[in-house]
Amino acid sequence: MVYLTRIEHFNAAHRLYNPEWSSEKNEVVFGKCANANWHGHNYELYVTIKGQPNPDTGFLFDVKKLSQLILQYVIEPLDHKNLNLDVPFLKGRMCSTEILAVAIWKQLEPHLPSDVQLHCIKLYETPRIFVEYFGE
Amino acid sequence: MVYLTRIEHFNAAHRLYNPEWSSEKNEVVFGKCANANWHGHNYELYVTIKGQPNPDTGFLFDVKKLSQLILQYVIEPLDHKNLNLDVPFLKGRMCSTEILAVAIWKQLEPHLPSDVQLHCIKLYETPRIFVEYFGE
Amino acid sequence: MVYLTRIEHFNAAHRLYNPEWSSEKNEVVFGKCANANWHGHNYELYVTIKGQPNPDTGFLFDVKKLSQLILQYVIEPLDHKNLNLDVPFLKGRMCSTEILAVAIWKQLEPHLPSDVQLHCIKLYETPRIFVEYFGE
Amino acid sequence: MVYLTRIEHFNAAHRLYNPEWSSEKNEVVFGKCANANWHGHNYELYVTIKGQPNPDTGFLFDVKKLSQLILQYVIEPLDHKNLNLDVPFLKGRMCSTEILAVAIWKQLEPHLPSDVQLHCIKLYETPRIFVEYFGE
Amino acid sequence: MVYLTRIEHFNAAHRLYNPEWSSEKNEVVFGKCANANWHGHNYELYVTIKGQPNPDTGFLFDVKKLSQLILQYVIEPLDHKNLNLDVPFLKGRMCSTEILAVAIWKQLEPHLPSDVQLHCIKLYETPRIFVEYFGE
Amino acid sequence: MVYLTRIEHFNAAHRLYNPEWSSEKNEVVFGKCANANWHGHNYELYVTIKGQPNPDTGFLFDVKKLSQLILQYVIEPLDHKNLNLDVPFLKGRMCSTEILAVAIWKQLEPHLPSDVQLHCIKLYETPRIFVEYFGE
Repeated sequence: MVYLTRIEHFNAAHRLYNPEWSSEKNEVVFGKCANANWHGHNYELYVTIKGQPNPDTGFLFDVKKLSQLILQYVIEPLDHKNLNLDVPFLKGRMCSTEILAVAIWKQLEPHLPSDVQLHCIKLYETPRIFVEYFGE
Repeated sequence: MVYLTRIEHFNAAHRLYNPEWSSEKNEVVFGKCANANWHGHNYELYVTIKGQPNPDTGFLFDVKKLSQLILQYVIEPLDHKNLNLDVPFLKGRMCSTEILAVAIWKQLEPHLPSDVQLHCIKLYETPRIFVEYFGE
Repeated sequence: MVYLTRIEHFNAAHRLYNPEWSSEKNEVVFGKCANANWHGHNYELYVTIKGQPNPDTGFLFDVKKLSQLILQYVIEPLDHKNLNLDVPFLKGRMCSTEILAVAIWKQLEPHLPSDVQLHCIKLYETPRIFVEYFGE
Repeated sequence: MVYLTRIEHFNAAHRLYNPEWSSEKNEVVFGKCANANWHGHNYELYVTIKGQPNPDTGFLFDVKKLSQLILQYVIEPLDHKNLNLDVPFLKGRMCSTEILAVAIWKQLEPHLPSDVQLHCIKLYETPRIFVEYFGE
Repeated sequence: MVYLTRIEHFNAAHRLYNPEWSSEKNEVVFGKCANANWHGHNYELYVTIKGQPNPDTGFLFDVKKLSQLILQYVIEPLDHKNLNLDVPFLKGRMCSTEILAVAIWKQLEPHLPSDVQLHCIKLYETPRIFVEYFGE
Repeated sequence: MVYLTRIEHFNAAHRLYNPEWSSEKNEVVFGKCANANWHGHNYELYVTIKGQPNPDTGFLFDVKKLSQLILQYVIEPLDHKNLNLDVPFLKGRMCSTEILAVAIWKQLEPHLPSDVQLHCIKLYETPRIFVEYFGE
């Protein structure tokens, strides 16, 4: 079994804000991340799949096709968007990097071919903070 | 003469939008960068100063003090902010990286001590796009 | 379960030297790393914790608090220090990156809240050498 | 148990081409990667070993010796070579990054000392694509 | 005046070989870079232009258009190619990084709009070697 | 004219301390950088030379020879050393990055061949601080 990783990029605005709390509590918990006018990030996304390489091609999966699937199902709905307002699959959810990584897994996993498995979604929010999710 | 560079980081939301144009023209010119709900970036800021090292310290300028000046006059007003809405020194201006780099120069330059000169503001908007401004 | 990683930085002097051996044997085993006048490194430290995100915040753990714990219990005692001479929790031990990574785990782990688990300490000694420790 | 990683570099030419297929089918499957005149990459190789540190040295294994083994058994036969034509241990095989990572494992593993285990071969083909192999 | 840089990527095969010299002399001068079966690299290309930002857009030049020009006139003819055999504008020339950087300047410069100037072509051959050319 | 840069690495211990000052004044001016037991860094060194490429080789200067000169005259005397105690060409001088960059220029420049010129010494002390020196 080998593991293949493709790195893609998107950037987006967001804020951390729980609508069931007062502004004061949001400010205490989230600090400047709760800014009502939003802030944003360049996100670096690592998608890792695993499986057996095909002996005819040497490929686990064609990395160009993997890239196209990521672009279609993940980058297109997220890039240059407001994570809190513009993204159907994040509606009503906290837009933390933890939640976002799990949501990207659920968004991408059903579209992968049956002979490969999604192994990990790794998401850098800044050059010094990242989250990983392995599907359970 | 030596050149000393300190790298700092901030993240912010913005959009590219000219209020004197129609939504359609903004869409044509700026594409998804005009998204009404904003998007955002992790900005990497390189501040370069130049001058003669002090023979007693070996320093052109104490890099901790340089860092504090950048934090006070540049990072504090920009970090976790909306560049179009929250930043007094960008009011009424296009929030492109070009304009932002020049504005950071004007913001920082008056606060440097007289025996060093600001040489360059270099600003990464994404890992593949950056702007430099040398003061003229 | 999600994994959250925070990257921090410190720099320090050290040498590799076993006091029970002769200078000659130290020289043979450790080469220039045994230099009696020390050498040093910029260490990049990756701290990974794991657990369930809190649905109210979307956070596994507030990354600012994680950063403060790392600074207080790890960076403060190590940064700009001599690992062989200045660090109580390394006294009498070899200052290899392997030993240092395990010592950082023991230093940090008791101070994490009970609802998260420390998963990995990853420590870069140079841009081309790093060590990982998973607690057992 | 600790994990120690050494990063090395090589560059090489290759093409993706299955000699049992027509040129047309190769073109369809591999696109520009099938270019008859070859193309090439800078490969970044991460070799991770695991085991118990020696209390006398603090080392899992002397990283200089690990580097020498990688240079002798992996970098020397691959660096500045044509992977399809010049490398005995790749003869008759597809030169994908997946196949190459597995071949590097088989090339290096028998030469490691018995008290350490090879844990992972990680190979970057470009800055945005990498493969990992854990030996099974 | 501001400077705007866009970074693009291509990979290619090449060899260093002067056809007017014997194989022996090529071997002495170029060493393993003269390998008859080629080797290759991931090239990172930094294109820097300079000029006045347009006050209506805040742009020196639309970075998406700059990217398209680089792709059309530079990346398309070089990516996944053999620099010695496949590239019309390198025919009969040594394929060193120095020569390649100058050739990229000549290839791109005529296609830039008249209100911006090409300032620098910077080309990484490996992560530790790069060449810059400023047009004279 | 083209510019060719080679990046090399060394690591070393140092402290910032002016022997003509009291310990108290050193502590005030240099803070933890004055630690009597030293600290250290991984230094990344960028050496840039300029000149005309040789039409027979395509080279400004053979980068392997440039690397050998840097190793012989710069890396060998600095790597795994104490900059304050072990380096003849730094004796009696403040070991700031500014002073070190100028000293490296003076150390390397006389050994370059007459048909190339040294253009810049760029020295990273940490991933966020670097100094450049252009020879005057």
